Amino acid sequence: MELAHFLQIARSDEPADLVLRNGRVINVFTGEIISTDVAIAGDRIVGVGPDYEAREEIGLGGRHVCPGLIDAHVHVESSMVTPPQFARAVVPRGTTTVVTDPHEIANVAGADGIRYMLAVSAGLPLTVYVNLPSCVPATHMGTAGAELTADDLVGLADLPCVIGLAEFMNVPGAVLGLPGVLEKLVAFRGRVIDGHAPAVSGKWLQAYVGAGPGSDHECTTVDEMLEKLRLGMVVFIRESTAAKNLRALLPAVTPSNARRCAFCTDDRHPADLLDEGHIDYLIRLAVAEGLDPITAVRMATLNAAEWFRLRDRGAIAPGKRADLVVFSNLKSFRAEMVFAGGVLVAQDGTPTGDWPIPTVDDSHVRETVHVKWERLSFAIPACRDGERVRVIGVVPDQVVTEHLVEPAKVVDGLAVSDPERDLLKIAVIERHRGTGNVGLGFVHGLGLKCGALAGSVGHDAHNLIVAGCDDTSMLTAARAVGDLGGGLVAAAGEDVLGSVPLPIAGLMSDQPVETVRRQMDRLVEVAKSLGSSLHDPFMALGFLALEVIPALKLTDQGLVDVEKFDFVPLWVK
Amino acid sequence: MELAHFLQIARSDEPADLVLRNGRVINVFTGEIISTDVAIAGDRIVGVGPDYEAREEIGLGGRHVCPGLIDAHVHVESSMVTPPQFARAVVPRGTTTVVTDPHEIANVAGADGIRYMLAVSAGLPLTVYVNLPSCVPATHMGTAGAELTADDLVGLADLPCVIGLAEFMNVPGAVLGLPGVLEKLVAFRGRVIDGHAPAVSGKWLQAYVGAGPGSDHECTTVDEMLEKLRLGMVVFIRESTAAKNLRALLPAVTPSNARRCAFCTDDRHPADLLDEGHIDYLIRLAVAEGLDPITAVRMATLNAAEWFRLRDRGAIAPGKRADLVVFSNLKSFRAEMVFAGGVLVAQDGTPTGDWPIPTVDDSHVRETVHVKWERLSFAIPACRDGERVRVIGVVPDQVVTEHLVEPAKVVDGLAVSDPERDLLKIAVIERHRGTGNVGLGFVHGLGLKCGALAGSVGHDAHNLIVAGCDDTSMLTAARAVGDLGGGLVAAAGEDVLGSVPLPIAGLMSDQPVETVRRQMDRLVEVAKSLGSSLHDPFMALGFLALEVIPALKLTDQGLVDVEKFDFVPLWVK
Repeated sequence: MELAHFLQIARSDEPADLVLRNGRVINVFTGEIISTDVAIAGDRIVGVGPDYEAREEIGLGGRHVCPGLIDAHVHVESSMVTPPQFARAVVPRGTTTVVTDPHEIANVAGADGIRYMLAVSAGLPLTVYVNLPSCVPATHMGTAGAELTADDLVGLADLPCVIGLAEFMNVPGAVLGLPGVLEKLVAFRGRVIDGHAPAVSGKWLQAYVGAGPGSDHECTTVDEMLEKLRLGMVVFIRESTAAKNLRALLPAVTPSNARRCAFCTDDRHPADLLDEGHIDYLIRLAVAEGLDPITAVRMATLNAAEWFRLRDRGAIAPGKRADLVVFSNLKSFRAEMVFAGGVLVAQDGTPTGDWPIPTVDDSHVRETVHVKWERLSFAIPACRDGERVRVIGVVPDQVVTEHLVEPAKVVDGLAVSDPERDLLKIAVIERHRGTGNVGLGFVHGLGLKCGALAGSVGHDAHNLIVAGCDDTSMLTAARAVGDLGGGLVAAAGEDVLGSVPLPIAGLMSDQPVETVRRQMDRLVEVAKSLGSSLHDPFMALGFLALEVIPALKLTDQGLVDVEKFDFVPLWVK
Repeated sequence: MELAHFLQIARSDEPADLVLRNGRVINVFTGEIISTDVAIAGDRIVGVGPDYEAREEIGLGGRHVCPGLIDAHVHVESSMVTPPQFARAVVPRGTTTVVTDPHEIANVAGADGIRYMLAVSAGLPLTVYVNLPSCVPATHMGTAGAELTADDLVGLADLPCVIGLAEFMNVPGAVLGLPGVLEKLVAFRGRVIDGHAPAVSGKWLQAYVGAGPGSDHECTTVDEMLEKLRLGMVVFIRESTAAKNLRALLPAVTPSNARRCAFCTDDRHPADLLDEGHIDYLIRLAVAEGLDPITAVRMATLNAAEWFRLRDRGAIAPGKRADLVVFSNLKSFRAEMVFAGGVLVAQDGTPTGDWPIPTVDDSHVRETVHVKWERLSFAIPACRDGERVRVIGVVPDQVVTEHLVEPAKVVDGLAVSDPERDLLKIAVIERHRGTGNVGLGFVHGLGLKCGALAGSVGHDAHNLIVAGCDDTSMLTAARAVGDLGGGLVAAAGEDVLGSVPLPIAGLMSDQPVETVRRQMDRLVEVAKSLGSSLHDPFMALGFLALEVIPALKLTDQGLVDVEKFDFVPLWVK
C-alpha cells in the first residue's frame, strides 16, 4: 500500500478494510493487556484504538488478540512435507512467521534446494524467512550432495526473505579460526548469525560469541542457558520431536532476562505438529510450567522479531503487518482465529478460504537417489585380527548414541546380524553422486526380529540408511527407497511391507500433511510388527549417520568416533 | 583487529592487552551484577571471566564496571563548542557514544555543516554518530542558510557514522502525507527514523507512527509517554538545559516497559555539562528518584544501542567495543575511570593521556554572517491604523512564549523601545545570504534597562537576533556579532561590553569548553548589569525566532502566530 493511502486511512479520512472490535490486545511493548479495537488496511495494521470505521467488522467479544507467532529456528524438511503443507499445519495454530534453515535440502541439492524452498514458500499465509545453512556438509567424514562455501552463501544472501546464517554448528572451526569457516563468519559480519553450541562453555564459548554467532538453541540446562545469556546470546528455547528442552530451561527465564529469550521447534514430525501443535504448544507448556503468559507471548513474537530484525512484525501497532491471533484463554493458548497479512486464514484450528498453491518447477529437487545397485553388497568379511565389533547403541528418544563393543556373529566367513541379541547390520549408502560408497556396521537397540528398515532421511548428509536382520531384506528395503525416488520403507525378504514416499529431495512428501501422518503411522505399525520397540524407529535410524553428535555414528565413508572426531575400524582387536 | 588474532586471544593462546581484574560487572543482558574480570584486546572486549593473562592489569578492587554511556539524541552545537571539546566535557562523565543531530549547523551550512561535524569527530574517544536533520529548514516562514531535500539526505545517508533520520519534527507533513515530506520518510524506510511529536496523540499519533518515526524524546507527561510506548515508540527521557522532563516521566517506567526507554540530553549548555554532567547526571537523577540502578544503566546503554542498531556496543561481552565506565556507588553514579576502545581516556572526571586533535578544513563553516550593514535599519514607522502592537512575551525557562498586545510608544513617528514597561525592540536579521530581510517586533520579559543583546544563535534558522533599548545599542551589538563572524554580544550605545565569539557557523566557539563557560558567565553578568533578570537571557533570546514553538515568534520574514502557523501584522487595529 502506498504510504499516502495508508495515512488517509490512519487519519480516518478513509475507512479501513477491517476492524476487529472489542479485543483484549496483548501489548508486547509494555506487557499490558488493553481492551480496544484493531484497524487493518491491506496487509497492515493502521490503528490500535477506538472509533475506526471499516468496510468489515469482526466482533471479538473480549477475546484476546496477540501478534502472529514466530518460530525462531525450524527445519521445515523435518515435517516431511513441503512448506505449503507445513503452513497448513502450523498457521491454524497461530504461527505466521518462521525462520527456517533449509539445511537438510541443502545437503541434498545445495543452492538449488534453498531456492526451491524460497520459491515454494512465496505468497503463503506463513511468511517463510530463510537463514542460510552455514555448515554444508557438516563435516568431510560423510558425503553430502552439495557443499556451500562462503562465496556460495554470499551469492544467496541478498535473495528476498533471506536473513543471514543459520546454526553455525562448526564450533571448533569458528573458535580455532579455521580457513573456510572464518570466511563465512567474516562475510556475514553485520548480519544475523545464529549459533549452535551444545554444551560449549568457558573460553571456547567466549571466543565463539566473539567470532559472531549471537544466538543459541542447543541449551539443555539452566546453567548453560544463563552462561549464554550473560555473554549476550539470545536463547531460543527448543521443544522439538527429538529434543525437549523447555521444561528444563524455563527456570532460567526471569523478568530481567526474558527479553533475550525466544522459542523454536527445530524439528517436529507431522504427528507432533498435528497432535501437540507448534509454537502455540510451547506457549501452553511454558504457561503450564508457571511462565507469565504475556512473557510467553513476548518470547514468541517481539523477542524473535527483534533478534531477526523483522521490524514489520512481532507486535500490534500502526504500520506492522496484520498477522494476528485471536484466542480466549491466557492460560491455555489456542488460536481461534488467525489473520495473516490482514486476511482471516484459519479458524478453530482449520485453514479457511483459498490458500495459494504455488506452482514451482521442482525437477531440481526430485530424482535425488543415485545408487549403483548392481555393485551394492552388504557383505562384511570376518576379520583375522578380532572377533568383536563396534556397535552403535541406540538411546531411546535421544540423538546421541552409545559406543558399544560386542562379539560378532560370523557365518560362512561373514559377519551377520544377530536379531536374538538385537544386533542388526546397518549400511549407509551414498546416494547423491553414485560414488558406490557404502559404510557398514552394526546397531543395537532397533529391536527388529526380522526384515529391514530403510530411509533416505539420514542427518545431515541424507544418504540412504538401511538396517535389518538379513541382507536380502536390507536390499529389498534399500531398493524400494530408490524406486520411490526417496522415502521410508519396511521390508521382509523380497516383500515391501510399507512405505512413505518422500520424492522431494528424499526428505519431503508431495502429499498433504494429514496423508503423510497416516502413512507414517501405518509404517511405524509395520516396523513394530517386525519387532521394533521404539516410538519412532525411522527417526532413530535417521540420526545414526549424524557424525557431529556423539558417540559412535556411521557415514557412507565408515564408522566415526565422534569424540575423537575421526574414523575408527569396525573390528576391535 | 583480524578475527583470527582476536580468537587467539579469546582462547588465551595469546595474552590480552589489558585485563580489568576484580570488577563488579553490570550485565545489561540479564540485569545481574557479576564479580569477575574483563579482558581487552585492541579496541574490543575479548572475554568476561577469570584467568585471562594480559600485558597490563588494572585492579578494580570490587568497583562496578558498566558499558560506556550513550546519549540517544543531542545537538552538540548547543554545547557551544566543537565535538572535540564536547567530548572533553562528556567522556570523563562516562559517555562514550552520542547520536547527534547536526540540525543547527545544517540550518547554517547545509550538507557542508554535517560533513564538518563528521570530520571533526573522527578518531575521538567519543564515538559521534549522526542522525541526519530531517527538517531543514523547519518551515518556510524563516530563511535558513540551507535546505535539505530527500535527495540531499539520501546523498549523506551512507557516510560512515550516519545512522538515519533525526527528530522528524514536521508532524503535520508526515501525518498529512505532504509532498517533500513523504519522500523523506519513504527514502529512509528501513533505517532508523527518530520522531519528535510533542503532545501529539490519538489518530494523529497512530498515523505518525505508521508513517515511520519510531522514537520520541518530547514526552512531558506519564500519559503521553505511555501512549507512545504502547504504539511501539522507543521513548528517550530528556533532561536538557531548557527542557527538564525526567522527574515527570520516571513514574511511567516499569520493569515491563523499561526495555523501550533510553536517555537523551538534546541541548545542554557548557555550565550544565561541567557542573551537573551529561548522561551520568540523568542516571543519578533517576536513581535518586527511585529507579532501579541497573535499569537506569540499561536505559543508558543497551536500550539505546538496540534502537540505533549499534550492535558493537552498549554491553560488556566478547566482541563488543571496549567502552567501559568504572564507578563505585550504584546509588550515585560517578565515573572514576573511562575506557574508550580499550584505552583509559579519563580518570576522576578529567581527561587523561593524549587525545587526538582533529585537523579539519573548517573554512566552509566559518564566515557565515553575511549582512548588508549599510542597508540595515531598525526603524518601525508608526501606523495610521492602530496604536497597539503584538509583543512576544518571554516565559522564563521555557521555549514557548506568550502572544501579548500592548500600546506602542511612538516618538517622532517611530515606534520605539520602552524599557520602563520592559518593552524592547527586537530584530531578526537574515544573516546567511545577505537578502536584507529584517523582521521587526517587540519583546517583553528580557528586562533590559539599557543597551542591547545580540546573537547568531537563533533556533532553528540561526539568523542574527538582537533586542535592545535603543537602535544605536542594537546596531552596535549586531555589528559586533558580525565582526566576530558569529557570537553573542552585549552592548550599550556604541560600546561593546562583552562577547562570546562563536566563529564556527555562528554557533560554536573554537575554544575549550571551560573557556567558553567562563566567557558565558561573564557575558551573562554583563547582561544582568544591563537589567536582565533572566537566568540565561541569551538562551531566551535564541528561541524567540523558533517559529514551530507557540505562541508568537519573529523570523527574518516577520511575526509568526505559531498556532495559526502564519504571519501576522505587528500592529493591531
